[in-house]
Amino acid sequence: MRGPVVAVIGQGSPEGGPVMDDARAVGGLLAERGATVITGGLGGVMNAASEGARRSGGRVIAVIPGTDRSEATEHADVVVCSGVGEARNLAVVASAAAVIAVGGAWGTLSEIALASRLGRPVVLLRSWTVASPAGETAPAPILAGSPEDAVERALGALS
Amino acid sequence: MRGPVVAVIGQGSPEGGPVMDDARAVGGLLAERGATVITGGLGGVMNAASEGARRSGGRVIAVIPGTDRSEATEHADVVVCSGVGEARNLAVVASAAAVIAVGGAWGTLSEIALASRLGRPVVLLRSWTVASPAGETAPAPILAGSPEDAVERALGALS
Amino acid sequence: MRGPVVAVIGQGSPEGGPVMDDARAVGGLLAERGATVITGGLGGVMNAASEGARRSGGRVIAVIPGTDRSEATEHADVVVCSGVGEARNLAVVASAAAVIAVGGAWGTLSEIALASRLGRPVVLLRSWTVASPAGETAPAPILAGSPEDAVERALGALS
Amino acid sequence: MRGPVVAVIGQGSPEGGPVMDDARAVGGLLAERGATVITGGLGGVMNAASEGARRSGGRVIAVIPGTDRSEATEHADVVVCSGVGEARNLAVVASAAAVIAVGGAWGTLSEIALASRLGRPVVLLRSWTVASPAGETAPAPILAGSPEDAVERALGALS
Repeated sequence: MRGPVVAVIGQGSPEGGPVMDDARAVGGLLAERGATVITGGLGGVMNAASEGARRSGGRVIAVIPGTDRSEATEHADVVVCSGVGEARNLAVVASAAAVIAVGGAWGTLSEIALASRLGRPVVLLRSWTVASPAGETAPAPILAGSPEDAVERALGALS
Repeated sequence: MRGPVVAVIGQGSPEGGPVMDDARAVGGLLAERGATVITGGLGGVMNAASEGARRSGGRVIAVIPGTDRSEATEHADVVVCSGVGEARNLAVVASAAAVIAVGGAWGTLSEIALASRLGRPVVLLRSWTVASPAGETAPAPILAGSPEDAVERALGALS
Repeated sequence: MRGPVVAVIGQGSPEGGPVMDDARAVGGLLAERGATVITGGLGGVMNAASEGARRSGGRVIAVIPGTDRSEATEHADVVVCSGVGEARNLAVVASAAAVIAVGGAWGTLSEIALASRLGRPVVLLRSWTVASPAGETAPAPILAGSPEDAVERALGALS
Repeated sequence: MRGPVVAVIGQGSPEGGPVMDDARAVGGLLAERGATVITGGLGGVMNAASEGARRSGGRVIAVIPGTDRSEATEHADVVVCSGVGEARNLAVVASAAAVIAVGGAWGTLSEIALASRLGRPVVLLRSWTVASPAGETAPAPILAGSPEDAVERALGALS
């Protein structure tokens, strides 16, 4: 039986450094646990997480902004060309049972917010710090200290 | 190696009759030829084509309008929750190398048009008749007379 | 009191010929009748209809595909940058009480289909010919023979 | 000559309290300064800002998620039915030259993020606190202490 679908989100650049290493590790660990990885299908964290998952024999879904599948990371089993630009961020997180953010720029923050709005558990690793306005009772994202911790917490939130 | 992704499009209801039989047959034939089937992920033709493909061991992608994957046909390997409503029609055809329409209501016609605009080959089986305005030079969809003919023409347009 | 919002749809090019003259006339007549014109906000028919409406003192809304308002026709009072690419076709017709197609390429046909699916009256002038599959009971678009006739029929369908 | 378009964003509920008073004041002050207000077109902050702008003679644009304009706030001059659900958040901020968040839930945070990604100045009033990951150089939103301050800073960022 298929395991859950987990989104890995983060900036599309640059390609190196500890954030990319962590993204690759998160992808690999999710694959080892039987989860399918879904990303926004471009470079940076998206590519690194996809590469990590594929190296560990996992399944990877890429949901790209445009209509030309050649723009997608090569490390994907399924490429969905959304055609709706940055609005594909909604599809990435809505298609997942849980979300792991590794690092991240503004686009990532929009995904953290959309996922939380949909009630998907969100785990943050080296990512944004957010605090809701006084009086709001938004459920807080879960902080993780390592790739292992992030995967554990994301899958734990689903059981 | 994976074969091409082919979209099967058509109305979401009703569930019976020759159009549904043809959709099921188209899905099965695509799977036998190694193609992945992508649909809008709901009922009617979408469900029938997905069921046919899965029975023949094929892979099926469902791209649904909403954010709740339980709305998707049960006959799908991958469910993408687009969250953009009827605008997911664009994602269904943009993600495919070729498109086969079986029957169809207005939503199907929008997909035929969007696919043609993107330059994807479109094969019509028991579907819409369209004629462009005088002076326009739109490439015409391909007419097919049977499920076998439709699959042959769709895959032939890709080779 | 404000009159209805009517969408004028058609190809984004070329800029000359009888189709553009008709689009300009349709825009002008709608403005004279108190209607607001909404278009996809780019060139060709969209620009011509907008120019015609503004010359007659009418109000014009442009809903463009991208996020940069400088891409919009200069003949618009309100520019909405949808950011969802070709999926903005849905917004153009959903925001209108009735739709008039003047000429048209594939994108226009997608709008005719989406509008019909939403139950918006659609009037065709020098535009696509469509026939639904046998057994389908799709309400047919309305054929018009001139700009005057098109506007009369579109507004008549709303009263 | 028309002034700039400024988005006012915030939660869709509840209807009372200081956040709503501030939203109403922000809308009114924007109108007095000649700006057009654009919102997501529903209740709560969106409705309050729209009401405030209209009371001061301003122009209001509502971009709603669905395809039924009766869902929009009554305090709007132009209603755009996006049809793309929560993805309309992108249209709200992309259509604005600057953005003011008043309070806000998760959907608001997604708009703050999308606006920042597009380079639109974002002013926060009683709203989210966000801090980007170490090493990121995201331009920070602007904090405001009152409706007057928020409007001053938003319009000031455009001059």
